[in-house]
Amino acid sequence: MSWLTVPPGHYFSINNIPFGIISTPSNTTPRPAVAIGEYVLDLHAFATTSAKGFSQLPDFTQSDVFVSERTLNRFASLGRATHRLVRGYLQEVLSIDTPYPGLLRDNPEARKACLLNTTEDAVQMHLPMEIGDYTDFYAGRNHAFNVGVLFRGRENALQPNYEHLPVGYHGRASSVVVSGTQVRRPRGQVIRSGEGEKVPVFAESGKLDFELELAAFVGRGSELGSCVGVDEAGEYLFGVVVMNDWSARDIQAWEYVPLGPFTSKSFATSISPWVVLMDALEPLRTRPLERGTKVPLLPYLQESNSESVYDIPLTISVKTQSGTHKISQTSSSNLLFSFSQMIAHHTVTGCPLRTGDLLGTGTISGTNTQSMGSLLEMTANGTRKIPLGDSREFRGFLEDGDVVVLTGGCGKAGVGFGECVGEILPAGK
Amino acid sequence: MSWLTVPPGHYFSINNIPFGIISTPSNTTPRPAVAIGEYVLDLHAFATTSAKGFSQLPDFTQSDVFVSERTLNRFASLGRATHRLVRGYLQEVLSIDTPYPGLLRDNPEARKACLLNTTEDAVQMHLPMEIGDYTDFYAGRNHAFNVGVLFRGRENALQPNYEHLPVGYHGRASSVVVSGTQVRRPRGQVIRSGEGEKVPVFAESGKLDFELELAAFVGRGSELGSCVGVDEAGEYLFGVVVMNDWSARDIQAWEYVPLGPFTSKSFATSISPWVVLMDALEPLRTRPLERGTKVPLLPYLQESNSESVYDIPLTISVKTQSGTHKISQTSSSNLLFSFSQMIAHHTVTGCPLRTGDLLGTGTISGTNTQSMGSLLEMTANGTRKIPLGDSREFRGFLEDGDVVVLTGGCGKAGVGFGECVGEILPAGK
Ligand SMILES: [Ca+2]
Ligand SMILES: [Ca+2]
Ligand SMILES: [Mg+2]
Ligand SMILES: [Mg+2]
Ligand code: NI
Repeated sequence: MSWLTVPPGHYFSINNIPFGIISTPSNTTPRPAVAIGEYVLDLHAFATTSAKGFSQLPDFTQSDVFVSERTLNRFASLGRATHRLVRGYLQEVLSIDTPYPGLLRDNPEARKACLLNTTEDAVQMHLPMEIGDYTDFYAGRNHAFNVGVLFRGRENALQPNYEHLPVGYHGRASSVVVSGTQVRRPRGQVIRSGEGEKVPVFAESGKLDFELELAAFVGRGSELGSCVGVDEAGEYLFGVVVMNDWSARDIQAWEYVPLGPFTSKSFATSISPWVVLMDALEPLRTRPLERGTKVPLLPYLQESNSESVYDIPLTISVKTQSGTHKISQTSSSNLLFSFSQMIAHHTVTGCPLRTGDLLGTGTISGTNTQSMGSLLEMTANGTRKIPLGDSREFRGFLEDGDVVVLTGGCGKAGVGFGECVGEILPAGK
Repeated sequence: MSWLTVPPGHYFSINNIPFGIISTPSNTTPRPAVAIGEYVLDLHAFATTSAKGFSQLPDFTQSDVFVSERTLNRFASLGRATHRLVRGYLQEVLSIDTPYPGLLRDNPEARKACLLNTTEDAVQMHLPMEIGDYTDFYAGRNHAFNVGVLFRGRENALQPNYEHLPVGYHGRASSVVVSGTQVRRPRGQVIRSGEGEKVPVFAESGKLDFELELAAFVGRGSELGSCVGVDEAGEYLFGVVVMNDWSARDIQAWEYVPLGPFTSKSFATSISPWVVLMDALEPLRTRPLERGTKVPLLPYLQESNSESVYDIPLTISVKTQSGTHKISQTSSSNLLFSFSQMIAHHTVTGCPLRTGDLLGTGTISGTNTQSMGSLLEMTANGTRKIPLGDSREFRGFLEDGDVVVLTGGCGKAGVGFGECVGEILPAGK
């Protein structure tokens, strides 16, 4: 428990301590911080003001450098042992029986200099990492199956390779944005149904969708030409966020053959601002979905820890003028492959990972309409509109002004993500 | 003509002046340079030693900052007008009737401090740009057709979308390497032919291939949510290199459905080290291939300049123990879409471009075996081996120790690229 008041069930309990990049009206320089309940601890102020916050952690020799960075990349690059050390130290500083009461708990001046209250202070969140490459996997087996049924029928729903490797593709790093960034409805080439020949027209996307995903940031990088073993892959991970991989389904359907999605997804991808470190997720480990194939995975994907994914409840809500409507409730246990397997596969041919790379899980879906991760699935590609609560509003795909809110966490564990929010702006003219 | 001796027909004549990043044994800090013939002008030394090389170009206010960078990104970000100004000035400095004879031509001390001779001095080339995102298009229509015929037959060779938009996908930026970097044969999941069921095995790639491409670097960036018009897109370009998009065809065939190539290409992509600025390519403009569809392109892809691509002769050679064998001769005019069209399409949904982004054209092929850009095409997926000159050696795909050399240029114009070279190392154990 913390000496700061944290509401019971809050995802940012002392068991979490997620890291992010903040700025404030009085100090507009982006800088590292951690969150606890409704509070934010400004780590730059913590380290450099009279608090001298890291003075009791002399092993963290990079503290001065770290707190002066505008992203978490340098901290992430230091590796799991350092993340553990620093997070553990901050948990001690913030715990009710802290061994360092003079640093903050009993030091009103230091608290004033370092602690922000998000219900009172205007804290602006920034993209937490500089992202070199963003890779999106497709490890949500139910999602792959649901989509496969829509387009190929039940018999051929999953492609032959699907259960043998974590299918993935390169995404666009330049358009990964932090939660709160508004998303403009894209325009592009689409095929109007009903026309005989396949002749595209230029139009606003009429099938704008979200995809509920988790995404992990890479901490330590790997070398060109070297493979990361699946059981060492955890050492290369930094932390996890909730991600919305916005998708324009009509643009996607026309463009994606044969090289995959491109402009239909590259217009924006939103992530929650607070990075939940890997250690904070440890209590939520569980087994992944079961594979249906008879042959075992190839050895490079066989992970020793059978509890290789996380059971984190996840929700999707849509805010409209009529209110906020929860439309889906699922769990991140609906994955066939773990982040460690994704890393082992990503590097198997020798592709180097760099600090700050982002690895999306792919859309996370359960098996029924109330647990799916995209409107494409929930509405059978727009053919069966879903109700937004009892508002008498229905949605096939997203409308202008809709605000999509993704979040997730386990109140009992006191560990979860902030919100990943995005509002749809009308298309440009 | 230059006061430096440049062999006739050299691609790095005074009409070119490509930019790159060099280091030397006596100064291992990477820094900007330009090439002329076999000479390299160290721009850091030029600017900062007694030569005060940019003193006659006061409008280039960023010269001191630029020469102290380890990449060309800052220079590229300054836009076409600045590239033109600086390149034009350096052409004046190096021309036989230079208006600034005291800077270099008649200044032995300055020449000694700034000029390197690559036949005598060990000049190390580095990656010229920090690459945010790398996008690979598929605009080589003959290549797309040749590959389509192999896998789907002549009737369905080109997909329905192919002539309506520049098909492209996101590539892996972290594994783009400079010419000379050795490439380790990748291992991964492949399907052994002859087996009834589709069960992958883990093996070295037996179908390692090259892809001959040009690639453009983005200069000016664009904003999230904004589209770049096709006729303004040239202002966003910096310069062009030759690229080898190494590809493991057996890994690719198994993994690419439905989201495109991933580990089969992300292990390495090589580029030539000298960036040929857009202005240097102007004399080589020509018309692209003709589209076969009856409907016109959608307006956002209609370019005013009908000479939208470049007619640059390109060659592929393979060096083995028996010698260097030229196996292909083609031209970059074998493209259906221009770099400007690629930019207009890339940004049509609002995806932002950043300085240093790399845009590959896709494999450039002619229509016969001696003008194709990949072994996949030349050998019909390895089924018809090609001879390496009269060496009695044959190749289906690349063997360990093979050195692939891509280059291109027009000797008459005195404009072209350096070599893009890579040697195949045996797979790791
Ligand atoms: Ca996705
Ligand atoms: Ca390619
Ligand atoms: Mg996206
Ligand atoms: Mg490549
Ligand atoms: Ni200097």
